[in-house]
Amino acid sequence: MQRKHLNAGPVAGVFYCPGTEDPISFIPRNRIQVAVLGATGAVGQTFVRLLADHPWFELNEVAASERSVGRLYGDVAQWIEGELPPHVAALPVLPCDPSIVSAPIIFSALDAAAAGEIEARFARAGRLVFSNAKNSRMEPDVPLLIPEINAGQLAALPTQRKRMGWPGAGAIITNANCATTAAVIPLAPLHAAFGIEQVFVATMQAVSGAGYPGVPSLDILGNVIPYIGEEEEKIERELPKMLGRWNGSTIVPAMIGVSAHANRVPVEHGHTVCLSIKFREPVAVAAARDVLDAWRGDAASRGLPSSLDQPLVVTDMPNRPQPRRDVGFGRGMGVTVGRLRADPLWDLRLVALTHNVVRGAAGGSIFNAELLVASGELGAA
Amino acid sequence: MQRKHLNAGPVAGVFYCPGTEDPISFIPRNRIQVAVLGATGAVGQTFVRLLADHPWFELNEVAASERSVGRLYGDVAQWIEGELPPHVAALPVLPCDPSIVSAPIIFSALDAAAAGEIEARFARAGRLVFSNAKNSRMEPDVPLLIPEINAGQLAALPTQRKRMGWPGAGAIITNANCATTAAVIPLAPLHAAFGIEQVFVATMQAVSGAGYPGVPSLDILGNVIPYIGEEEEKIERELPKMLGRWNGSTIVPAMIGVSAHANRVPVEHGHTVCLSIKFREPVAVAAARDVLDAWRGDAASRGLPSSLDQPLVVTDMPNRPQPRRDVGFGRGMGVTVGRLRADPLWDLRLVALTHNVVRGAAGGSIFNAELLVASGELGAA
Amino acid sequence: MQRKHLNAGPVAGVFYCPGTEDPISFIPRNRIQVAVLGATGAVGQTFVRLLADHPWFELNEVAASERSVGRLYGDVAQWIEGELPPHVAALPVLPCDPSIVSAPIIFSALDAAAAGEIEARFARAGRLVFSNAKNSRMEPDVPLLIPEINAGQLAALPTQRKRMGWPGAGAIITNANCATTAAVIPLAPLHAAFGIEQVFVATMQAVSGAGYPGVPSLDILGNVIPYIGEEEEKIERELPKMLGRWNGSTIVPAMIGVSAHANRVPVEHGHTVCLSIKFREPVAVAAARDVLDAWRGDAASRGLPSSLDQPLVVTDMPNRPQPRRDVGFGRGMGVTVGRLRADPLWDLRLVALTHNVVRGAAGGSIFNAELLVASGELGAA
Amino acid sequence: MQRKHLNAGPVAGVFYCPGTEDPISFIPRNRIQVAVLGATGAVGQTFVRLLADHPWFELNEVAASERSVGRLYGDVAQWIEGELPPHVAALPVLPCDPSIVSAPIIFSALDAAAAGEIEARFARAGRLVFSNAKNSRMEPDVPLLIPEINAGQLAALPTQRKRMGWPGAGAIITNANCATTAAVIPLAPLHAAFGIEQVFVATMQAVSGAGYPGVPSLDILGNVIPYIGEEEEKIERELPKMLGRWNGSTIVPAMIGVSAHANRVPVEHGHTVCLSIKFREPVAVAAARDVLDAWRGDAASRGLPSSLDQPLVVTDMPNRPQPRRDVGFGRGMGVTVGRLRADPLWDLRLVALTHNVVRGAAGGSIFNAELLVASGELGAA
Repeated sequence: MQRKHLNAGPVAGVFYCPGTEDPISFIPRNRIQVAVLGATGAVGQTFVRLLADHPWFELNEVAASERSVGRLYGDVAQWIEGELPPHVAALPVLPCDPSIVSAPIIFSALDAAAAGEIEARFARAGRLVFSNAKNSRMEPDVPLLIPEINAGQLAALPTQRKRMGWPGAGAIITNANCATTAAVIPLAPLHAAFGIEQVFVATMQAVSGAGYPGVPSLDILGNVIPYIGEEEEKIERELPKMLGRWNGSTIVPAMIGVSAHANRVPVEHGHTVCLSIKFREPVAVAAARDVLDAWRGDAASRGLPSSLDQPLVVTDMPNRPQPRRDVGFGRGMGVTVGRLRADPLWDLRLVALTHNVVRGAAGGSIFNAELLVASGELGAA
Repeated sequence: MQRKHLNAGPVAGVFYCPGTEDPISFIPRNRIQVAVLGATGAVGQTFVRLLADHPWFELNEVAASERSVGRLYGDVAQWIEGELPPHVAALPVLPCDPSIVSAPIIFSALDAAAAGEIEARFARAGRLVFSNAKNSRMEPDVPLLIPEINAGQLAALPTQRKRMGWPGAGAIITNANCATTAAVIPLAPLHAAFGIEQVFVATMQAVSGAGYPGVPSLDILGNVIPYIGEEEEKIERELPKMLGRWNGSTIVPAMIGVSAHANRVPVEHGHTVCLSIKFREPVAVAAARDVLDAWRGDAASRGLPSSLDQPLVVTDMPNRPQPRRDVGFGRGMGVTVGRLRADPLWDLRLVALTHNVVRGAAGGSIFNAELLVASGELGAA
Repeated sequence: MQRKHLNAGPVAGVFYCPGTEDPISFIPRNRIQVAVLGATGAVGQTFVRLLADHPWFELNEVAASERSVGRLYGDVAQWIEGELPPHVAALPVLPCDPSIVSAPIIFSALDAAAAGEIEARFARAGRLVFSNAKNSRMEPDVPLLIPEINAGQLAALPTQRKRMGWPGAGAIITNANCATTAAVIPLAPLHAAFGIEQVFVATMQAVSGAGYPGVPSLDILGNVIPYIGEEEEKIERELPKMLGRWNGSTIVPAMIGVSAHANRVPVEHGHTVCLSIKFREPVAVAAARDVLDAWRGDAASRGLPSSLDQPLVVTDMPNRPQPRRDVGFGRGMGVTVGRLRADPLWDLRLVALTHNVVRGAAGGSIFNAELLVASGELGAA
Repeated sequence: MQRKHLNAGPVAGVFYCPGTEDPISFIPRNRIQVAVLGATGAVGQTFVRLLADHPWFELNEVAASERSVGRLYGDVAQWIEGELPPHVAALPVLPCDPSIVSAPIIFSALDAAAAGEIEARFARAGRLVFSNAKNSRMEPDVPLLIPEINAGQLAALPTQRKRMGWPGAGAIITNANCATTAAVIPLAPLHAAFGIEQVFVATMQAVSGAGYPGVPSLDILGNVIPYIGEEEEKIERELPKMLGRWNGSTIVPAMIGVSAHANRVPVEHGHTVCLSIKFREPVAVAAARDVLDAWRGDAASRGLPSSLDQPLVVTDMPNRPQPRRDVGFGRGMGVTVGRLRADPLWDLRLVALTHNVVRGAAGGSIFNAELLVASGELGAA
C-alpha cells in the first residue's frame, strides 16, 4: 500500500511534526476514538492535555474511580498545568468498565493498585490498552515499547493474547518507568552499535514524576531525597528488557548489567540521568558521538504525529542538558544528551535529560498508540 | 607529658565537644593567635563564624585583597549567614602580607588565583598555612589532611620544607575539595578494612560550594546543572591521595580508580554523594555496615575541639541522608551515611552527606590546625 | 509570695532563657505533666520537639486519632524535622479522651474538624487546654493569648467556665493564626503608644504553615500562590481581638480596621508580613522606632522559660528580615522587624518576620501555658 | 490611506497576533532595521529572542560595551534562555555609537549608568530610542508608554525634541519599571471608569527582574528578600505618570497616591502584585469586574504584531494568578488578574501578574516601537 501523510487541514500547532523521507503504512482516514482511564490524576491530565490537538485521536471518554463517576470532568479534575480543553471539561466521568467505555484505544493512567485487573478487562474486551503501570511491564510477551528502539517487540502480541485467553485482538502495551526512559534512549543506539555490558545510572528526578499531590513541599524545598520507592529496581530490570528482542516466544532481555541510584530533586519537570557505560570492546568518545548524532530511530517510528526528525540531540554546551532549559525539546518528546566524555574506569560517560511526564509517560503512550495504528494493529483490534 | 583537656572556663556552646577516652598530647595553655586570609569571601566568613567561640584559637587578624585593606571588616564583608561577631567586625582589614599579619596559624580562604604565591610567602615566614585552594593539594609532600583518616601524612612536612627551601618551621597543609571530602570519609574505613579497587561517585552539590555571589539564581532555581568546572577531575585525583600514605619521600596515592559525575542542585548547604564501590574481594553489606558503625577515626584525631565522638553515623531511615535535614549533624563536622545496600554490578552502594562549607572547607581547616597544635607542630613552628 | 527562678539542675540548652529583673509569681517545684493531642501531625510534632527539654513541663502522654491509638508514637509519627526524642518515640498513642489522658495541661494540635468537641471535653474535665484551632478563638470569653501583649485576657476564664457550665477549673486558651501573630506583635506596642486606626497587611507565608503533607511541591516550587483559604478573614478578625481588652464580661476588640492579602511562597519556615499603618494622629518614624526598641512585653510575660529579654528586635539592615536568615531569632520565639519607614499614604511601613511553627503555633501555646502556670492558674485547675 | 495587515509570507509562529476589527494607519512594506544597545545582558538577550521572528522588525545590529566590541555576539553573550538565533550569533558586536549603528529604531537595554548619555546621542542623531532605563522616565515630555493605556503621551515628542535641541525627528520613549507595569495595566481601565484616589501595592517579584547574574542563589533559595533598591520609589512615582495626560506642555501625573512594598521571591519569571484600591466614590466589585472584562485597550494599540485581542483577563480560579502557571499568557504580553474582591478598608482588592522580562521590559519596548511605526512616527524620524 502506498504510504502517505495525513492530510487533516490546518493541523494543531503543538503536535504534528511529520518525518519527511519515511512513509508510514497506514494513515487513519478519520479520527480514532480514544479513552483515558484514571483521567483525573497527574498522568491522566497530561493525556488529556496532549490529546487536545492530536491529528489522529479524538478523546471523548474519560474514566476514573467510583467517587468521580457521573460528575463532569471539569468539576472533579483539580487541573494542574496549562488549560483544560473545554470539550473535555464537559465530559461526564465514566466508570472504568469496558461495557461502558467504547473507544478501541485505551490510554491507562491507572496506578499499580487498580491497573492489573481493569487493564486486563479492557484487553479481554478487544481494546488496545496503553498502560503506564508497572503491573504487566515485565511479562515476557508484553511489549515495553519505545517506537524508536524496539518496535519489534510488537510481535509479541499474538502470544500475549493466546496466553491470556483473550478472544479478540485486544492487548496490553506498556511504557517504561519514566527514569528508565531517559536512560534507555541514548543507550539504545550505542548498544546496537557497540554492545553494552554494564551501566551505572544516577538519576535526579523531577517532582512531577511522583504525581499530584505527590511530594510534599516540606520534603523537597532546598533538599534532595536520595530515594524513590522501587525506582532503582525498575530501572535495573526494565532497561535490559527494553533493549531486548522477541525471539518468537519471549522477549529476551539484553545481557546488560545495571546499577542505579535514584534521587528526587526540587525540579518541576525533567529527569536528568548520569550514565557511565562499559562496552564489550573499548569505544572512543568520538565514535559514540557519531552514532548518537546519526541516530534517527527505527524506521517504523518515523513519520508519526509524535515523531521527531531527530529524537536525540547531543549538545556541546559544557553545562547542559539542564531540566529547566532543555525539558521542552521536541515538545517534550526529545532527549537531550550532553557531557559526552571518557570514563576513567569504563568507556563513556554522559548526561541525558527527558521530560518525564511527556516522553516518560503520557506522550510515550500516545506515540506507542500511533505506532500500533500505523502498523495496522487497530484493524486487527 | 600528661595529656589533659583544655580547661577554659565556660566554653562556648557550639564548639567544644571533647572526646572522652583518648588523651591528646598537647593542650594549649593560652589561646593561640590565628589569622584568616581572604576573610571577606564565603569561606573566609565561615572561618570567622566558626572561630568566634573556639576554645584554642583567637582570631585577631583578618586579611583580604587590596581594595578592602584599611577598612573595617564589618564595613567590607557582605555578611551572608548568622551573626558577624562584633569584635571581628571592628578589626581593620590587613593586607595578605606576612610582615604585617603576625599570627602563627594562618587559615587561607584565598582562591586559586591568589593562593599560590601568598600562601608560600606565609609558609616561608614560618607560619602553618591551612589552605583551601587547589594549588598545592597534589604536591607529593603536602598533606591533603583529614584528621580521622590520614593524620600520618603530616610526616611529609619536613620534606616539604626542605624542597621549598623554607628556613623555619612553616608549612602548607591542605583541605580536600568539598565534594571529595563527602566521599572519602566513608570510603576510608572501608578501604582500611577491605581494600577498595574502584568507585563511582555521583554528586549533588549545594550552591554554597560555589562561594558568594556564586551561582546566579536564574541558573539554579528549579534546575540541575550537571557540570561543575574541574570538580570531577579534583575528585578523581584527590580521593586516591587522601587514602594514600607517606612512604618517607612521597605521599603514595591509594590504587583506587575513581569515576565522578558532579552536579549542582538547588540546595543551600550540604553535598550529597552516591557511591558504588568495588572491593578487592567480595564484601557483604553487613560486614561493611559493621566497619562503618565501629569507626571512630584515627586516635590522633580524638579529643580535639572539633572532634566528634562518632564522626560518621549510618542511618537506617530509608530516605536519608537529606541535606536540609542532616547537614547540621555534629555541628556540620559529621558525615551521615544512608542507603547502605548491595550493588548489582559491584559490591556496595551508599549515599553520604557532608556540610560542604563546614567539614568541607573552613571547619575542616580548623580541625586540621587543632591536630597540628595537639601534635606539637606549633612548637616547631 | 517571693518569686524565684526555677532551679532544675542542668537545664536543657535550647530552652531556658530567664529574664533577669522580673520575678515571677510561681515556679513549679516539680515538672508538670503535659499531654499533646493530635501529636502525630506537623504542629503536634513541633510540640513534641519543643517540650523535649522543657524545664517545667514533662511530656508523658501523646494522643491522636483512632487509627494510631495503641501503637507506639515512634512507629506512627512520620517525623519531619530534627530528632524524635527517644522517650517519646516509646510512648503508646492514647485516644483523645480525658478519662484516659491524665495530664492537667493539654496542648492541642487538633485541626478544626476535631478540636471543637474534644477540647471542650478536656476543659469540662478540668484541664487547661491550649488550642491551635480556630474553633474557639473568636468566643468573647476565650483568650486569644500572647503573653507579651494581652495577658489581661486571662481574666475572661471564670466567665468562660460559667458560660460553658464547666464544673472545675478547666478552660480553653487559644493561639492566634500564625500569620496574625507575625503582624500583631509589632502592632501591639505601637497601638499602646499611639493608637492604630487602620492597617494593611500583605503576607508571604511559609509552606510549613499548611502542615504536613501540606502544600504539594508541584504547586509551590518556583511559584507564589496568592491565596490561603480563610487566612485573610482570620487575620482581619483575630488581630483586633488580640489587641482588645476584657471589660468584665467580654473581650472587646480594638477598633482597628484590617485589610489582608495572604500569599504562600516557597519558604520552609517563617511568615513575612508587610504592614502599612495609619495612626489616630500622625506619628514620626523615629517615635515609632523608639517605642519598638524600648518594648519588652507585658511584665507578666517576663522570666518564663520561653520569654526573651527582648521579644522584638528592629534591624537596620536594609534588606532584612528574611525568613531563611532571621527565622531562628530567639529560638523561633522572637520577632524581627525591619524596613521601618514612612508610608506615603498613611504613617508607617514595616516588615515583620516570625517563625510560624514555633512562635505562631506550638511554641506560642507552650509560652501561654507557662504564663498560666506562673500566674497560679494551674493551682486553680 | 488604506490600512491593511502586513503580508510577509509565512509569519513566525510565536509573534503575530493581529487584532481584527481595528485597522491601523501604517503597515511597513519592508522590514524595518532595528538595533539593540546593551545586547549582551539579560534584557538585551530578551530583545534578541523576541525580535527573532518579528514581522516588522529586522535585527541586524547589536551593540554593547567596549570589552565586547569587535567580537561575535554568539561568543560574548552568555546565553540564558531558549535558543540564540544563529544569524544574530554571527553578528559582530558594535560600539554604542550612532555614527556606526545605523538602524532608525534603537532598543536600549542599557542600565542607568550608561543610558543617559548614549541614548541622548542616538536621539540627537535622529533615532527613535526605546529605553528601559530610569534616566528619562520622569521627564515631563518623555512618554512612559504602554500602548493600551496612554498612547496619547506620544504627543509630547515634539516638545521633547525642542527642549533637547534635537535637530531631527529622534526621540526617547520609555518603558515603566517592570513591577509598575504589572500594577498599572489593571488600574488604567479602573481609573478611567471610576477615578482612583489611592492604592496600596505589595509586590512579589521574580529574580529575572534583577538581570543576570542578578540575585545570588544563596540569597534567595527558600527565602524572601523584602527589599529591592529604589523599586518602591519607582512604583510610587511612575504609576501616576503612566496614568497621566499630556496637556500640551507637560505630562500631568494622575492625582493618585501610591504606597508600595517591594519584595523579591524565588520565582524565575513573573511579578505578582497585590493591590488595594480606593476610588473617589464607592465602587462595587461587580462593577469593577465588568470594566476589566470589557477592556480591550486604547484603539491605537490594536492590530499591532504585539497586540492581544484581550490584553487583560480576569480569572475566577480562587488561587490564581500564579507566576509559574500564568506568566506565559499572551506570549508574556498579557496581564492575568485574580482574586477580585472587596477591601474591608477601601473598595477593591485584586492580584495581578505580568511577565516582567517580556511585557515589563523588552516586549513592552517592542510593542511601543510598533505603536510609533503604526502611527507614522518613523516617517517623521
